[in-house]
Amino acid sequence: MLDLNKPQIIALFDFDTAVNRINDAYIASTQGNVQTGDVVHLAFPEANGDCHVKSGHISGTTSYVIKIASGFYDNPAKGLPSSNGMMLAFCATTGEPLAVLRDEGWLTDMRTAIGGALATRALARKNAKQVLIIGAGIQARFQAICLAKLMPERALAFSIWARDPSAAQAMSAELKGTGHVVETVLDLEAAVSNADIIITTTTATEPLFANGLVRTGTHITAIGADCPGKQELPTDLVTTASLRVCDMARQSLNHGEFQTASRTDAALQVIELGEVLSGAHAGRTSDNDITVVDLTGIAAQDIAITQTIIDAAASTDPT
Amino acid sequence: MLDLNKPQIIALFDFDTAVNRINDAYIASTQGNVQTGDVVHLAFPEANGDCHVKSGHISGTTSYVIKIASGFYDNPAKGLPSSNGMMLAFCATTGEPLAVLRDEGWLTDMRTAIGGALATRALARKNAKQVLIIGAGIQARFQAICLAKLMPERALAFSIWARDPSAAQAMSAELKGTGHVVETVLDLEAAVSNADIIITTTTATEPLFANGLVRTGTHITAIGADCPGKQELPTDLVTTASLRVCDMARQSLNHGEFQTASRTDAALQVIELGEVLSGAHAGRTSDNDITVVDLTGIAAQDIAITQTIIDAAASTDPT
Repeated sequence: MLDLNKPQIIALFDFDTAVNRINDAYIASTQGNVQTGDVVHLAFPEANGDCHVKSGHISGTTSYVIKIASGFYDNPAKGLPSSNGMMLAFCATTGEPLAVLRDEGWLTDMRTAIGGALATRALARKNAKQVLIIGAGIQARFQAICLAKLMPERALAFSIWARDPSAAQAMSAELKGTGHVVETVLDLEAAVSNADIIITTTTATEPLFANGLVRTGTHITAIGADCPGKQELPTDLVTTASLRVCDMARQSLNHGEFQTASRTDAALQVIELGEVLSGAHAGRTSDNDITVVDLTGIAAQDIAITQTIIDAAASTDPT
Repeated sequence: MLDLNKPQIIALFDFDTAVNRINDAYIASTQGNVQTGDVVHLAFPEANGDCHVKSGHISGTTSYVIKIASGFYDNPAKGLPSSNGMMLAFCATTGEPLAVLRDEGWLTDMRTAIGGALATRALARKNAKQVLIIGAGIQARFQAICLAKLMPERALAFSIWARDPSAAQAMSAELKGTGHVVETVLDLEAAVSNADIIITTTTATEPLFANGLVRTGTHITAIGADCPGKQELPTDLVTTASLRVCDMARQSLNHGEFQTASRTDAALQVIELGEVLSGAHAGRTSDNDITVVDLTGIAAQDIAITQTIIDAAASTDPT
């Protein structure tokens, strides 16, 4: 059985392979070719922590994957990361354990960012260039880096806004240090109005900005909302958008960004990202469309990225 | 992180410690001190396999446990065991991975047998001596061995019956070889009538013997039924027993041995094993009682047995 820690996983990781596999995983999910186990939730209120277990199998692939991910939010005060976890892969024809990937949440961060980048590339205007990232945490950094890597020809320019300006400043400095065009912004309303692409990566429970600020032609990818009560975008922006896209409709409408909009408009039309990535749905049809993507995260992404690591390990070690 | 394979786990295992911890786990479960995650089920019909994930935490203990167990029933034809799995333990205050126990199902087999032995010891007559074991698989062996080990002063005499007499013969020979008093029986009805204790360990979907054969004073522990449609005992034997005991009422009535009886008698009274083990319920009150225990298996057992291995590893390796 393969047992890899985070540095070993990162060393084996190949971005382009993961992008292709995750792209295919979204399509498989939309086409009904992914079996997903019920999500397990354990809560540790006394320790300010929780643990989730996601699991599934993509039809025709060699392994099924079980992901264990925890967040213990007092850990940083103890000098520990708040996230922990591992991806476990098992042979889909014998049940034998194939791999324990002790990634400390890195593969989840990466598959989430690749999902966001795939969605943004698929739905933003072809000439979109100005990217506003709201939030300055780990996922904000991953989103910026993956988007720039996925669309190198666009020469994207990033603006970073966060509730804590010093956090935005720190993230900007990091991205500048790796060659990105980036500025910190203090006026969120102006930045929203000037953006071609907006990516939200916060834990907000109410809209980050007012409706009416987003200009026509803008694409928005909302990453933050992942449980009942979370919301980053104005409800009216969602309900009046030209196109609403999500990774999995039942998750998005139940506990993702579209939960409030779907209560406002019971007939709210949403399509799944896999339909756009496969070409079954045209996606954006005009440079004037406002498009909104909500990603809550699906097991198919975990399976896909885990399989890329297992395959890479197998190809470097023929035993 | 501790990473142990099956031989290492068996080397660290201490029977008496596990018995005590599992005893306490049943009591904690009954007293509402165990958090249990929803059971995950993945099915692989093309490979004749499935996978279950159980998880939970006993209040006040240092770790939470996630168990992954698979059965791929074409494996033996490939020279592989049908069961696979592992127990994973994580720190309940930080989420850090503590241990991967690649036990291949051994800890599940052992905790199941210890549960059966604890229930049998608690509820059988004090002078019970003649034990009939129905079934001759792995769990039949574990039940016999654990029961003899838990009640050495009784000098138990075992009778083994199985649909395939040669399987019963092979199991008898094994147990004789390790010093047990054991005989193979061919006449199941006579053996049921002569038993003080009956332990059923089969995958039967209809009663193994007719009602009316069990004599007064007999104790029965039913292990086999673990999903809708399985049943080992006559329904009338269950409904007319002096006492019905299970590990977790909602499981037993939904998919355990008591499922049929509870449909026959909507007011069927059952108590939980933890109530008997804690002394909150008196259990058997007469040598004439017929007592029936149904065990479907609970996450608290998995947590308890896993913690004994982690503790043993920590005490042998102070790093």
